Amino acid sequence: MAFDLAVLGAGPAGYAAALEAAAQGLSVALIEKAHLGGTCLNQGCIPTKLLLGGTAAVEELENQARARVATGEIHVDFAALQTKKDRLLAATRKAMRARLDAAKVAVFAGQGRFLSPNTLQVTSERETAEVAFTTCVIATGAKPASFPGLAPDGQAVLDSTRFLALTAMPKSLIVIGAGYIGLEMAQAAHRLGAAVTLVDALDRVAATEDPETSKVLHTAFKRLKWDIRLGVRVQSLVTENSRAVLTLESGDRLEADLALVAVGRTPLTEDLGLDAAGITPDPRGFIPTNEYLEAAPNILAVGDVNGRIQLAHAASHQAGYAARRAAGKETGPYAPGPIPSILYGSPEALRVGLTAAQARAVAQADGGEVTVSRAQLVANPIAQAYAATQGQVQVVWSNDKVVGISAVGRDVSRLAVAACMIVEEAWTPADLHRVIFPHPTLDESLHEALCAPRQDQ
Amino acid sequence: MAFDLAVLGAGPAGYAAALEAAAQGLSVALIEKAHLGGTCLNQGCIPTKLLLGGTAAVEELENQARARVATGEIHVDFAALQTKKDRLLAATRKAMRARLDAAKVAVFAGQGRFLSPNTLQVTSERETAEVAFTTCVIATGAKPASFPGLAPDGQAVLDSTRFLALTAMPKSLIVIGAGYIGLEMAQAAHRLGAAVTLVDALDRVAATEDPETSKVLHTAFKRLKWDIRLGVRVQSLVTENSRAVLTLESGDRLEADLALVAVGRTPLTEDLGLDAAGITPDPRGFIPTNEYLEAAPNILAVGDVNGRIQLAHAASHQAGYAARRAAGKETGPYAPGPIPSILYGSPEALRVGLTAAQARAVAQADGGEVTVSRAQLVANPIAQAYAATQGQVQVVWSNDKVVGISAVGRDVSRLAVAACMIVEEAWTPADLHRVIFPHPTLDESLHEALCAPRQDQ
Repeated sequence: MAFDLAVLGAGPAGYAAALEAAAQGLSVALIEKAHLGGTCLNQGCIPTKLLLGGTAAVEELENQARARVATGEIHVDFAALQTKKDRLLAATRKAMRARLDAAKVAVFAGQGRFLSPNTLQVTSERETAEVAFTTCVIATGAKPASFPGLAPDGQAVLDSTRFLALTAMPKSLIVIGAGYIGLEMAQAAHRLGAAVTLVDALDRVAATEDPETSKVLHTAFKRLKWDIRLGVRVQSLVTENSRAVLTLESGDRLEADLALVAVGRTPLTEDLGLDAAGITPDPRGFIPTNEYLEAAPNILAVGDVNGRIQLAHAASHQAGYAARRAAGKETGPYAPGPIPSILYGSPEALRVGLTAAQARAVAQADGGEVTVSRAQLVANPIAQAYAATQGQVQVVWSNDKVVGISAVGRDVSRLAVAACMIVEEAWTPADLHRVIFPHPTLDESLHEALCAPRQDQ
Repeated sequence: MAFDLAVLGAGPAGYAAALEAAAQGLSVALIEKAHLGGTCLNQGCIPTKLLLGGTAAVEELENQARARVATGEIHVDFAALQTKKDRLLAATRKAMRARLDAAKVAVFAGQGRFLSPNTLQVTSERETAEVAFTTCVIATGAKPASFPGLAPDGQAVLDSTRFLALTAMPKSLIVIGAGYIGLEMAQAAHRLGAAVTLVDALDRVAATEDPETSKVLHTAFKRLKWDIRLGVRVQSLVTENSRAVLTLESGDRLEADLALVAVGRTPLTEDLGLDAAGITPDPRGFIPTNEYLEAAPNILAVGDVNGRIQLAHAASHQAGYAARRAAGKETGPYAPGPIPSILYGSPEALRVGLTAAQARAVAQADGGEVTVSRAQLVANPIAQAYAATQGQVQVVWSNDKVVGISAVGRDVSRLAVAACMIVEEAWTPADLHRVIFPHPTLDESLHEALCAPRQDQ
């Protein structure tokens, strides 16, 4: 069978590429070896958010209890929550399938493998098919990474996929990795009753964020009585007597019912027959792409697999471009606007555009002047109402134009879209009163930060 | 004493006017007969949000319990919540006072009254002062309205001010008025254990909103087992044997521990000596203003008192303009961007710009084509995670430009600022992919609504 476009992988990127290409009038084959929705829907963002949403009342009550406003007890039925999750994911996959069918996208279930720069072989348990294409979009995504001495063993040492499939939450959990994945899953585990130990080789949590964000997060997680070990190196993590046993290089030995290894994600480029397509992955396995997201003249790579940024919405945005390019509708290089990044849970963290450090690095090259303006959440009436006043909004300016916004605190993700628009439009002080921020909202902290004095530090 | 600017009333409008004028270099007198912060801080938006925030966990738990994910019980200590509220309000007033002092605004405690178009007399229990001014901004706000047969009596029939000062929540509450004030307070009462009866002469709740919004709200409040009586007329509401007794024109008689009358707010223009300033209020008591917010050549009226719109952020926005105009910095007419309007609680309702009906009325005059595009929350993963999938986002287009956005559902207020920017920028279909919406967020429903087919109905 021959198609205008073949898409490898039906995660957020592949799904978006297929639908957009179909909307552009192309004939499309979508090849997926596992589930529609990919990691994000099935083993990533969505199940994690269902766990965090389902347990949010626990956190809300804890906050009000600390403020001596409320007492009580909440029991979340983890098995019921997981059942609900499975039901919702199945319904979403079904809806995706219906939309693909309606768009006349041909869905192939199986592993895709290049035979040539214009042909893929799709192999499933039942059959083998050949798919010829004019253009191909590779959107195979990534899988949990592991390192020697730090490998999930399927017993007491789990990766994020296994963790999200648990049907009972352990009483104690060691989380290796204080990035987004580790922090979100640790919070879900905490709310479901697990005592959390958090371990990272770096010296702060959420190390991709501004250090001020990391500090607020750290304080919040300490308040949950987590055992947080930063700047430490793991010697081994193994299952002993059905328990996870972690030995640090310092000699410290920690035990828990289970351990979760969340040390990043590695691209899924093995078994694709990339050689036959004339593509060579980089040493870490990512597919290098040019400014048009092209890995070869007629093959584009989008999403986690190209190593640019590992976020679902970034992936689907790249995918839309790739599909339109396949249809001849995009001729310029791929130039996304600001890409929001959110840590979920409580507090949340948000980053759009540059951090202060990134802006200073750019300015050192360009000779710009970087300033930062801030608003603390402590005086915000909504933060007060939710008894969650720790946190801040930080605006990064370069030559008096907004180039970045970072925030940390309860519910700061609500600032994301407005922050993207403000960074995209590169607001100057003249823009500050263009929009009326509703009162009272947490959003006013963004306005307050925009209007606050701009400081060198 | 003589000032460049005298400001009457220290609510959101007066406070903003005073600070902005001081920042512009004017000498400023701020006159307030009661508390800094006015109704919004002391008897309005803020205390209501503190009640709703302090009880939010109750609602979150109810949602998850309905989804059979969680069980439990939450007891909110209403007295403790009210104590916390009083403490926070006092701290906010103190911070406001400090900021006014730092800006060298002269604060007068007392009732202001015009002696002439350039002089005010300020009378307090302790003293009388005369304040001469070049320009005056009237920002005296509004107070709860009442009608014959429907008057708070200070016993079992309360206005919103008295309701917010309660130290114990009654077991049953009749709320007269299904507008924003009534609905928010009824929700707080519900979460604090009161059985709610909601009564309105209009035939739907939140009648200022799009009918589709009203419908979702109605369903949600019915689910809380409220006794909702719409399209009914009150014959009398009185205290009998310490209980509130409501008699409808139909003859129905309803009883409750207390009743709250929330039938709107009436401007505070009595006792201002407006005659002496050459100002005549309209028949409802509002101060008429021209396109420069002027009530007289050197006197501007802002906020609730001018009858334009009763929202704190609209008031302070007008106030900023008025202060800059007093400083000679604004020469054009007052032209605010879209003003967001939010109903708090759960579900929330949001309106920015025009409703479909308003847009059609404009189009009938102008000959434009009005269409509506929608997204339902049911498929949104965050709505699913919070077990609150009722609701929608609705985009109103006129000639393929966005002129309004309405939304209803849990947490839809988070769309407010982005919605304002989109309406202000009058997005066309070409703008739809300008901003990357983060995944997964409720915000994606706004993007989905923007991208959905535009329909005539």
